[in-house]
Amino acid sequence: MALFIGVDIGGTKVLAAAVTSTGRVLRTALRTTPGRRVESRLVEDALTEAVEEAAGLRRPAAIGIAAAGFVDAQGERVRFAPHLPWRDEGVRARLAERWSAPVVLDNDANCAARAELAYGAASGAQDAVVVTMGTGIGGAIVLDGAVHRGYNGMAGEYGHMQVVPDGRPCECGGTGCWEQYASGNALARFARKRIGQEPTVLDAACGGDPAQLTGPMVTDAARAGDAVALAAFESVGGWLGVGVANLVAAFDPEVVVVGGGLSAAGDLLLEPARAALRESLVGAPHRTVPPVTRAALGPEAGAVGAADLARERFRTVGTRARARRRAARGTGQRR
Amino acid sequence: MALFIGVDIGGTKVLAAAVTSTGRVLRTALRTTPGRRVESRLVEDALTEAVEEAAGLRRPAAIGIAAAGFVDAQGERVRFAPHLPWRDEGVRARLAERWSAPVVLDNDANCAARAELAYGAASGAQDAVVVTMGTGIGGAIVLDGAVHRGYNGMAGEYGHMQVVPDGRPCECGGTGCWEQYASGNALARFARKRIGQEPTVLDAACGGDPAQLTGPMVTDAARAGDAVALAAFESVGGWLGVGVANLVAAFDPEVVVVGGGLSAAGDLLLEPARAALRESLVGAPHRTVPPVTRAALGPEAGAVGAADLARERFRTVGTRARARRRAARGTGQRR
Repeated sequence: MALFIGVDIGGTKVLAAAVTSTGRVLRTALRTTPGRRVESRLVEDALTEAVEEAAGLRRPAAIGIAAAGFVDAQGERVRFAPHLPWRDEGVRARLAERWSAPVVLDNDANCAARAELAYGAASGAQDAVVVTMGTGIGGAIVLDGAVHRGYNGMAGEYGHMQVVPDGRPCECGGTGCWEQYASGNALARFARKRIGQEPTVLDAACGGDPAQLTGPMVTDAARAGDAVALAAFESVGGWLGVGVANLVAAFDPEVVVVGGGLSAAGDLLLEPARAALRESLVGAPHRTVPPVTRAALGPEAGAVGAADLARERFRTVGTRARARRRAARGTGQRR
Repeated sequence: MALFIGVDIGGTKVLAAAVTSTGRVLRTALRTTPGRRVESRLVEDALTEAVEEAAGLRRPAAIGIAAAGFVDAQGERVRFAPHLPWRDEGVRARLAERWSAPVVLDNDANCAARAELAYGAASGAQDAVVVTMGTGIGGAIVLDGAVHRGYNGMAGEYGHMQVVPDGRPCECGGTGCWEQYASGNALARFARKRIGQEPTVLDAACGGDPAQLTGPMVTDAARAGDAVALAAFESVGGWLGVGVANLVAAFDPEVVVVGGGLSAAGDLLLEPARAALRESLVGAPHRTVPPVTRAALGPEAGAVGAADLARERFRTVGTRARARRRAARGTGQRR
């Protein structure tokens, strides 16, 4: 059976996974992302190491790359990636040459949505909104059962929809972007401000240094009933719901799927989001308010979706090649 | 040649139009919408009169209704319409019976988008965002060359996306909805506040009573160079651009079409919107920023689109009926 590798390259880490045709992860490999102020080659070295380790002794039939950045509509170039050194670079062809293997490329949130659609929480849905909450917010639109990429391949950049006029400055250069209020960063920022002002276990969790506070620490504290951590989730989950209500007003999906690292918090995050959605959504009494569900595939979703994309492309190529061979042999059946 | 009628029922008026298969309007008829606190029958009487007048002595082959409200996914019921008495009513079947003719029903903004796609500013586009600016904001999404209606038939309700937290109260029950900042109402509200505070021709235009000020008065004054009217367009156009940037971040369309009564102001409205879009849109230097163009069909777009929908449905029915007759006669050709 052919081996397909998906590799997800985010702002902090590179995760490669060998994935079966049913979406099962056989083996993973992890590297640290070298950063955005390095030569592109260093990032590509890290990708290569991760892919090789995930493949083990087998040769992959095709490799899919899920990149945290803008990927062009053709799936050839990374136009811009805030946390990576790539600037309008033809990454797909370069890596295909380096690896001597077929390579496909898409945005990480699109890949994660693809995995949820094939094997996870959006399975069977025709129209879905997928929101990926990590450090920031990524996203994807599912339309008629497939990920809709948009005219520039940039559909689903939900994190930079403005929700507060003249609001918090964002790395993108804008202000008041949704991800400044609903993300792992926003969660930690909320909690940090309260440390030293209210009694909270977070004080000890971060060793007295609020700068060391992370999202998972806040999640653990909220699970233990810490009031500050719970308030942080109320705030971030509420903002999640406000933005989701905007997307539902615009797109009217069947289901909303929330993935990414922060979704590990489950209902701590999703319950305030559902409440805000019901409150904010126009015409809520006259429509089906879509369920807001947690993504099923966890942190491997991007890599699994990238492998799935590679399998689909490779299968298509294989089917066409087989059809050509069959036609050449004159054994093709008439329909 | 078969005659198709489209009838657009808005909060203030009913417009029926007899439309050719190339989108040309042959004849129109206008009635006043009786309001929302009347019996449904009165509204349906007005519709009937308008349709009969537009049809003249000919019998329509089918009639399309464009309604300013939430229409269900099946196109059978008006779930809710803020300015009409219909509340979850099976309008399509009732009017088909009353008129003894095939009737189709959709949301007015969807119909207008359909007309722009078939004959207007979105002609040839695969993916488009259509924003309809009148008293409030309506809208539609075009995806893969067709109007996307959504799971509940409610996609494109852009006007009630929240752009200002705890902002101006909206008729929908929410606060800070986009249409509170970018609409005909918002334009008049902005100008009204300045009357009596700054020198402006609007003072005379409204006869000294700011409550009488309308959108078209502001447009006329802006065309004449009045500073207050121009500032009103800067504000409303700027807010239009901020909301459009959010929609472009989410959908990445090929083109943005702005229609509705306020679009008659043309570049007075669209230039500030384009500037705000360029400024607000994430990754603008790395993508094609979509053109923001004025709708081509004017105030008849909803009726033209409704007639087009009626023609499409009727044509489908006709084709199927012919196919059945052919099969019954045994003269069907094998493919």
